[in-house]
Formats: sequence, C-alpha cells, structure tokens
Amino acid sequence: MPDLPDAAFFDPALGFSIDLRHMAMSAADFDALVPRFQAAFAAMAELEGGAIANADEQRMVGHYWLRDASLAPQPELRQAIAKTQTEVKEVAADLRSRFDDAVIIGIGGSSLGPLLVYEALGRGEGGLRLHFLDNTDPDGIDLVLTSLDLDRTVCVVISKSGGTKETRNGMLEAKAAYDAAGLSFGAHAFAVTGEGSQLDTYSRQEGFIGRLPMWDWVGGRTSVTAAVGQLPAALQNADVDALLAGAAAMDRLTRAGDPRQNPAALLAAAWHVAGEGRGRRAMVMLPYKDRLTLVSRYLQQLVMESLGKELDRQGNTVHQGIAVYGNKGSTDQHAYVQQLYEGPDDFFVTFIEVLEDRDGASLEVEPGVTSGDYLSGFLQGTRRALADRGRRSLTLTFDRLDARSLGALIALYERAVGLYAELVDINAYHQPAVESGKRAAAEVLAVQAKLLAALGPEAATPDDWATRLDLDTETVASVLRHLAANGRVSAERLAGEAPWRWRYRAV
Amino acid sequence: MPDLPDAAFFDPALGFSIDLRHMAMSAADFDALVPRFQAAFAAMAELEGGAIANADEQRMVGHYWLRDASLAPQPELRQAIAKTQTEVKEVAADLRSRFDDAVIIGIGGSSLGPLLVYEALGRGEGGLRLHFLDNTDPDGIDLVLTSLDLDRTVCVVISKSGGTKETRNGMLEAKAAYDAAGLSFGAHAFAVTGEGSQLDTYSRQEGFIGRLPMWDWVGGRTSVTAAVGQLPAALQNADVDALLAGAAAMDRLTRAGDPRQNPAALLAAAWHVAGEGRGRRAMVMLPYKDRLTLVSRYLQQLVMESLGKELDRQGNTVHQGIAVYGNKGSTDQHAYVQQLYEGPDDFFVTFIEVLEDRDGASLEVEPGVTSGDYLSGFLQGTRRALADRGRRSLTLTFDRLDARSLGALIALYERAVGLYAELVDINAYHQPAVESGKRAAAEVLAVQAKLLAALGPEAATPDDWATRLDLDTETVASVLRHLAANGRVSAERLAGEAPWRWRYRAV
Repeated sequence: MPDLPDAAFFDPALGFSIDLRHMAMSAADFDALVPRFQAAFAAMAELEGGAIANADEQRMVGHYWLRDASLAPQPELRQAIAKTQTEVKEVAADLRSRFDDAVIIGIGGSSLGPLLVYEALGRGEGGLRLHFLDNTDPDGIDLVLTSLDLDRTVCVVISKSGGTKETRNGMLEAKAAYDAAGLSFGAHAFAVTGEGSQLDTYSRQEGFIGRLPMWDWVGGRTSVTAAVGQLPAALQNADVDALLAGAAAMDRLTRAGDPRQNPAALLAAAWHVAGEGRGRRAMVMLPYKDRLTLVSRYLQQLVMESLGKELDRQGNTVHQGIAVYGNKGSTDQHAYVQQLYEGPDDFFVTFIEVLEDRDGASLEVEPGVTSGDYLSGFLQGTRRALADRGRRSLTLTFDRLDARSLGALIALYERAVGLYAELVDINAYHQPAVESGKRAAAEVLAVQAKLLAALGPEAATPDDWATRLDLDTETVASVLRHLAANGRVSAERLAGEAPWRWRYRAV
Repeated sequence: MPDLPDAAFFDPALGFSIDLRHMAMSAADFDALVPRFQAAFAAMAELEGGAIANADEQRMVGHYWLRDASLAPQPELRQAIAKTQTEVKEVAADLRSRFDDAVIIGIGGSSLGPLLVYEALGRGEGGLRLHFLDNTDPDGIDLVLTSLDLDRTVCVVISKSGGTKETRNGMLEAKAAYDAAGLSFGAHAFAVTGEGSQLDTYSRQEGFIGRLPMWDWVGGRTSVTAAVGQLPAALQNADVDALLAGAAAMDRLTRAGDPRQNPAALLAAAWHVAGEGRGRRAMVMLPYKDRLTLVSRYLQQLVMESLGKELDRQGNTVHQGIAVYGNKGSTDQHAYVQQLYEGPDDFFVTFIEVLEDRDGASLEVEPGVTSGDYLSGFLQGTRRALADRGRRSLTLTFDRLDARSLGALIALYERAVGLYAELVDINAYHQPAVESGKRAAAEVLAVQAKLLAALGPEAATPDDWATRLDLDTETVASVLRHLAANGRVSAERLAGEAPWRWRYRAV
C-alpha cells in the first residue's frame, strides 16, 4: 500500500490520485527538494499576483486567472475575463446554429489545445465537426478544404499577432477556396486575436462574423482555457464551464503550501529525481484511453517549450529540458515498449488510468472479464513488469474522462512545469529560440526572390548561381531543386549527377 | 555542396536523396565502420537466403521476398507470395463493391502499417474509408463502432495467431454490435491470419467472407508489404503494385556492397556515430508533410522494438535502443523545437522533404511566394538554425509522396534497422520482453477472478482481502478500485481516506 503523504496523493472531489511508488524517489530525495519548493511556491504566488514573468516581452503570465477571475490583479482584467467567457457562449451558439463544420486555423498553442480537447471530449449533441489547418503544407491544406461543404463551414482563425506565417497562409488558402466557390470568406470566418493586430485589422476589412480577444498575458502553450481553447470547445459543444471548473479545482489543490500535499509538487519532484535535475530521463506518456492519445503531443509543447532552455536565470549555460513522447496503452505495448523493458534506462513512464470503462454495461469477452478489465490488466501488468526490471513509472488515475477531469489534467501539468522550472531556476514562460527557424526561413525566401529575379534563359549550376549572386550554395541548391519540382524553374538534368550539380534556368 | 559519396546519396529513378552533411560524421568515423558493414552485408545476404534469423521462434525473416518473390528460397514460397498478391486484388475489388467502410481490427504491426499507408496515401477513387480498432479500450471501441453504418461496413480482423487479446476483444465487441443490429457478423468479416490459427478456425465457424494468409516468416513490424498491409491498402484503393515496386527498388539500392553507395548503410552509420553506438541520441522525425505525421509512430515500432534489447548476440548486457519521436514540420517548430535548439544535445533530427507541393498550381500568398515555399523555407531554416547551434540533422528528400516513394521509405528503414542491428551485434528480429506485460496482465486478471469469487456481503479493505486470499496488495487495491468504478463491486468510501483504504464488498 502506498503510504500517504510521500508516495501518493488522492483528492476525492476530483476523483483523482497520483501514485509515485515506482519512481524510486526516497523520502530523503524529496526532503532535499522541500526548501526549493518553498521558493518555488513564493515565485508562483508572485506570478499569480501579476508579476512580470516573461521578461523578454515584459508580460505577466495569467493563465491561472482564466479559471478564477477573482485572482486577476486588476478589475479591468477580471471584467474582461468574465465578459469573454459570456461572449464565447453566445458566439458558439450562433455559429453552431448556422454551420455543420469548423476549420480551426492556427498553429502551436492555437491548435494543440483545441485538438486535445476535441479528441478527448468529442462532439456533443448539436456540436460542429472540427478540422484543423495547423501547417503551411499545400497538400495538407487541400486535403482538409476539399473534404468540406464550405457554405456550411466556418473558419476560426487564431493568431495573437496575425503575423504567424503558417496561420496567415492557411487563412489565405481558405479564402481562395471560398472565393473559388463563389462564397464570401468574411461571412464564414471568425477571428481570435489580439486587439489591433494584423489579423484584427484584416478581419474587419474582410467583414468577419466577429472577433474574440487574445491577451498578451496568456502564453500560447497555456491558452487552452482562454478563448483560444474555449471557442473551439464550445463549437464542438463540450462543457466549457466544467473544463474551467476542473482546472480551477486543480489550481486550488496545486497551491497547497506543503509540497507533500501538493500534486504538482509531487510530480515536479519525481521528474527532478528521475532526471537528476538535468532531464536525463525522458517522459513517456502512456494514457490507457484512446481519447487521450494526443496528451503526449500536447505535453511535448507544454513541457519541452517551457523547460528546453540553454541558460538558467543566472545566465549559466545549463541546456535544460525533458523529452516527451508516447501515444497510448495498451497499443504501444505492441510497438516500442520492448525498448522500455530492455533498452537504455533513459525514461520514466507516466501511466494515465481512467477507471470508468465506458457508458453502459460491458460485454464479457470471457466469463467475468470485459475488454476494460483487459485494459486495466495490461496497465497494471506493464507497470509491474517495468518495475521488476528497475524501470520507473508513475500513475495518474481519474475516476472518469470528462471535461472536468481533462481541465484538471491540463492544470496539473501547467503547474508542475512551472514548479519544475523553479527547481532548476529557468524561465518557463519564454521561448527565445523559436524565432531562429523563422528568421532563417525568411533568409531562404530572400534567396529564392533573388534567384527568381536573376534566372534567365541561360542555365547554370547552383554553385555558379551562388557565386554570381553572392549567396549560400546549400540554400541556392535546395531552393532551385524545390522550384524545379514545382515547375517554376527549369532543370537540365545531367545523367549520373545529383540535383545539386544540375543546371537551372528560368522556365 | 555535399560531396558524393560521403555526405550524400541520390537515386534518379526513385527521385530520392539523403543528405548527411549536418550529422557531424567524419570520413574517419565512416571508414571505421566499413569492415563491420562487410559483415553486416553478409548477414543480410544470409537472411535474404532463408537463414533462421529469429532463433527464439526458429523462423526465417522474409519480408524482402514479398517485394521480389524470385528471391524466396523455396518454390512453394514464391508461388504463395504471387498467389496471395493476386487474391488481395480480387478480394479488395469484391469488398470495395459491397461496402463503404472497413474497420481494421489489429494491433502493433497489424495496425501501424495500414494506418501509415492510409494517412499517407488517402482514399483513392471508389476506395473504402478505413477505421481502426487497435486497442481494448471499451470507450474507444464504442467511438468507432457507433459512428458507422454496420451493414455497409466490413471488419478485417488481422492476427497471426488469433490469440492477441486486444484484437480478439475488438472482434468480439464488433460481433456484439452486429448482433445487436440484427446483422450477421460473418457476412461482414474477413480474416488475415495464420493457417490453422484460432482466428482461422473461428472465421470458418462464423462464416467469414474469406481469409488471407499471414506467414510465420514475416514479423509484425515488417508486415506492411504482406497481406496485412496489402489488403487495407487495396481497400482504400491505393496503388499496391507501386508500393511494392518502390520497396523493391529501395531493396535493390540497399543491397549495394559499397557502404558509401548504400543509402541504408549511410543511415545506419549516421545513427551509429550520432549515438556512439549506444543510442545516446534520440531520432526526432520531422517530415514536412502533413500526410507523413504517423511516420514517427510507425518507426517507433520498427526501430525501438527491433533495436531495444538487453543482450547482444554474445549474451553481453548492452541495453541497446534508439528512442524515436516527432510529428511534423513546420508545426512542431511551434511546439518542442525550442528544446531542440537550446536543450540537451541528446537527439538528431531526420528531416523528410517532399519537393512537389501539391497537385496543380499554387496561390501566391505574397508576390512570388507560395505556402509550399514557406514550408520548404521553414525546413531549410530550421536545419540551418540547428546546425548553427551544433545540433545534428539528416535530410531525406523525395520528389513526391506517392505509393512508390512510401514503399521506398519503408524499405529504407527496414534495411537500415537491420544493418544497424548488425553493427551493434543484436538480434533485430525478436522481441523477447513483449510477453512480460501480457503475462503480468494475466496474473492481474487471475487476481480479479479470485476476488470476484470471494467477495460477499461483508466489506473489507484491499489489505484484508489480500491477506485472506494470499494475493498481492497493490494488485488487489487496483483491481477493486477499477471494479467499483464500473459498478461491479461496492465500495464503502471512508471520508478522508484514499481508495486503497476503502472497504469493498460484492454488489
């Protein structure tokens, strides 16, 4: 039996427990972290009080206020939160009455939260089917748009600034599809965006159905309880109030000042001990519930974008982070779990157990045994077999999967990530390197523009073009190959030579 | 420019290249592996000649024969391969003419390959919509079955032995749904299974539409080019011949005796150098193509189940393996790529580039710039930004994504995994630990049976029940909690106490 308080946590109101018996965390390990938790709780209290936590962007970090507006530091914020929550319901009821499908156009935090909620809770009575444009892949965009009756489909464009290129491109591609169908895009579009943003302006020019706000004090990866997540959830007709109430209940539990009684602190401590405070063990997520398959993808963003940092807050080079992967049990037992049993001891498993098997009674697949008994048996059996091999795991158990428990699960990880960041002294609320890829991509597109302007009837190799135009050869070769494959430049293929030695000219 | 042969490989017929420039693999690194490759090629030739490679089960490993039956060591095998390929087409044409939907009931290799092919190639003209029961989650099963018009739906049950419980349970749940709808299950079911297996017998008793064979010389994780993958692909009306031809073409390329000219050897060498021959860096899969999002999940099985081994073939304890994760670019740039830039240097990225953006012309989202240019720019930009930070990546480029290139991609990884296993001297063709979880689960279900038999009107704690019945307390507590949540035992909840201290009795 797990002994409270060290190895386990149970909350009867949420129908939720954590079991840490198989994490190889000793009382001494935990005790050593207790002083750091006191500092972490103080930092978290400052955050919730409105401190500037995102120093790069001089922003507050207020996602906890979304679940309990009374905590917001200014009355205007409290009013804005309440007003938006009411508006979400009105907007969603209107859109549900007029459309059958919704395309959520967003990326990162503007799609992962809605995706998780859609898969986990499904479509309620009268809810819309949701589809996602979360990339700038032309073929992927075509797949979604050509499958829909556009006149019965509303596009929800989600971008704080409107400057995110994937989202902007998805929106323009969608608009072109509506135009081609002779339909007004604006009459089928809704925006969730920052006030005064590019998207705000565009949506007014195009006569969008309406807008809901994105606030600068809500980060993308913690925006699922803001309008970003609330509106799609309401469109699918999930119980948004219960989602928020579940998150609020977990927020209350995870404010407990005794780390032994605080489920987020227990999680953060277990991660810290398993990874020696350096992320030396990956977090393998194994929800034994099909609807929760996307939890690992959601947590990849929440955990890895928050914790993957080169510098600590003192400026020391630390290269922190925890890798996250996994899909679902028992399915994954027939895939990579062989490596968990026998391979490197470089992970800990997080089992997610949902006690209620299904709505209604179950068939007996053998006398006295149901499919759900097998699912439960596989979870327990795998946990035991891993433990027998000295591999670590922890288990989160929920009575059932519904909007309330999903909200609680999300809030648990938000807080655990925040506390872990305090333990290792990094800033969980910025993502300084994400711009690197975008800047480098802009440089690639600048090279493309120069090439398209320079290419004429005379063919030359990428090497030659790079020399002539004073550009990077690797980039020139990649750009020319891509343009040639799409019929936008001509390639003279040389037998026996690779594309980076072909000769390219204008079409 | 990459210099052939060390940093790159290009095959004009397949429209395929590999770029290893950013893998930090020196010529000396590669040269040091060359002698081992000679041994690996010899082992691979023996395998292809019909050697017993799976010593545990005394099985040959013949997935390469599926793409070129002339290589199979016995004439009966050659005939069986050709005959089955013809039968798949006939069966699929018949089923396509009679149904709209197909439910693929299988797990592990019996679902991951079909899932990958379905998402990558989509539904062809007149093809069926595919759905998957790949778990024993009652709620997940309900989600699939209640969404279908069962009379227009065929169930394809895939299991070599018929003894895999998840698949057996999925089949029984499906049968119950057909029974409840007043429909004959057998008239809507087809089996892919071993001759004389439990499922073979059952399918004859129930009057299934028919059967296709699973051979003992094809392992689950390399079964996508066997009937296991061929039939679902033919049901969606993908070009199965092209899939096999692409795999065959890659098989020919990866038989090259010069490792510098062998794309699978180049991959295996790059993995070996990056991970110091111990899997010290995870394989992060970043296909910049929405349709390839499942590549990482497919490769988790192929790579981790093949390479995740405690012992080498000499019996030394080695704990080998390579962790695999990832979803798709550029989407993941807005999720965990922050950690790749700044976090631990514990991975290498595999970019998958597809040059052809879409069918038909593209909208310009800016003057001279398409959504596909952005996708290409993000890939190149991210690769550059990672390289600038000293992080490793390799790039696979395909002219286009179709059945042929998908077959080639699959065959490339099958061979690379086989060669890597030779480099580190492990057996890639067994999975000795996978039974551990199943055995442990059977023990859990045995505990459940004892509890259900023993529980009467008198309530007692899990501790008490465990003592009385001489059972493991942790298991007893978990089983009772699960049964109580589903109304199959009664729990007397004690205020302030966790479920493992409640008192349980019969309902």
